[in-house]
Amino acid sequence: MAVLPRSVEKVIEEFGKLPGVGPKSAARMAYFFLRAPRERSEGLAHALIAMKDQTKTCSVCFNVADMDPCAICSDRTRNRTSICVVEEPLDVVALEQSGVYSGTYFVLGGVVSPADGIGPEQLRMRDLKSVVSERAQSVANSTRTDGPAELEIIIATNPSLEGEATSAYIHDMLDEIELPEGVTIRLSRLAVGLPTGADLEYADRQTLKRALEGRTTL
Amino acid sequence: MAVLPRSVEKVIEEFGKLPGVGPKSAARMAYFFLRAPRERSEGLAHALIAMKDQTKTCSVCFNVADMDPCAICSDRTRNRTSICVVEEPLDVVALEQSGVYSGTYFVLGGVVSPADGIGPEQLRMRDLKSVVSERAQSVANSTRTDGPAELEIIIATNPSLEGEATSAYIHDMLDEIELPEGVTIRLSRLAVGLPTGADLEYADRQTLKRALEGRTTL
Repeated sequence: MAVLPRSVEKVIEEFGKLPGVGPKSAARMAYFFLRAPRERSEGLAHALIAMKDQTKTCSVCFNVADMDPCAICSDRTRNRTSICVVEEPLDVVALEQSGVYSGTYFVLGGVVSPADGIGPEQLRMRDLKSVVSERAQSVANSTRTDGPAELEIIIATNPSLEGEATSAYIHDMLDEIELPEGVTIRLSRLAVGLPTGADLEYADRQTLKRALEGRTTL
Repeated sequence: MAVLPRSVEKVIEEFGKLPGVGPKSAARMAYFFLRAPRERSEGLAHALIAMKDQTKTCSVCFNVADMDPCAICSDRTRNRTSICVVEEPLDVVALEQSGVYSGTYFVLGGVVSPADGIGPEQLRMRDLKSVVSERAQSVANSTRTDGPAELEIIIATNPSLEGEATSAYIHDMLDEIELPEGVTIRLSRLAVGLPTGADLEYADRQTLKRALEGRTTL
């Protein structure tokens, strides 16, 4: 015998489709809305639809945005000789909040993950290649002196197995690009080490290994 | 500078209002819908509204239902001389799934929790009192023999501090009810002990204490 009304089961079902939400959490969420005033349900329902209606994907960096190109790509004060390659839009938020980066971004849309059937073809690798080629060309064009012109590329994928594999793939791909004469690419990767406030005693072996390898001179 | 479109922030905000969902989980959920096909957002949005439109509260047991009285309260085969008092509708689901109870329910709508400002007045204590009085009367009316007529009340609040306090409150409240002549109340509480499959070694002290106190003769 079905004890819960079908409409409640349906909400539990929908919440259960969220990543990391098990049947018990889904039931708890549904039940929260069941007890909360109607405005709470309408608030989330309308926000979900509005988000789908109002967001665009920036055709330059592939970040989610209100407009295309996005606010960062159309901001003339951003340093266009630097591209920070990230996995997801939320990574852009995190980096912007750090307040130390004033270049541009490129959102890959994920990482290479053979276990999940995601190869480089499922990511925006071809787009990244085009963006880098174009940007190298514009660096070449805008450089009037004879000095070396540089395009900086920071690979900011997560320090996970998949993030490292993706980074390696990008590294190889960039090597294939024919750069305009006089233009070089300065490629870097975010530092891996102990996070601020961490306790060395509890750090995992891999993090400690990387922190030692990447030790900085005082 | 706002990096995320306002519509995305709004969804994160709404998810963040859910109990037990922190800002990071809320962002992850919003981002899931951002990437998922539009049908996924519409699915949850419509399910939330439909749940509000289609569910009722049973005026007898206060469980959520499709109709009033609910399926259990209008089922003539259920044993109406037994009332199981639970905190929430999901507790009814759990008990029904156990398949061993064929009586009726009463949903309190929570537990006494002074820390959250919830006293007995915020729960359905007065309704419970009326239901018990009425049911005791109907037990008296339907008993044709001279034998003792019994109304069973099972307190199935959680074995938490608040659940125990609520149970104690109900116990006192039931003592105040004037029962029809010849009718007695048989009051019980769900057993507390080691859960099936548990490891004695890892059981908390309180559970072990209760398991010992409630040991059953073999």
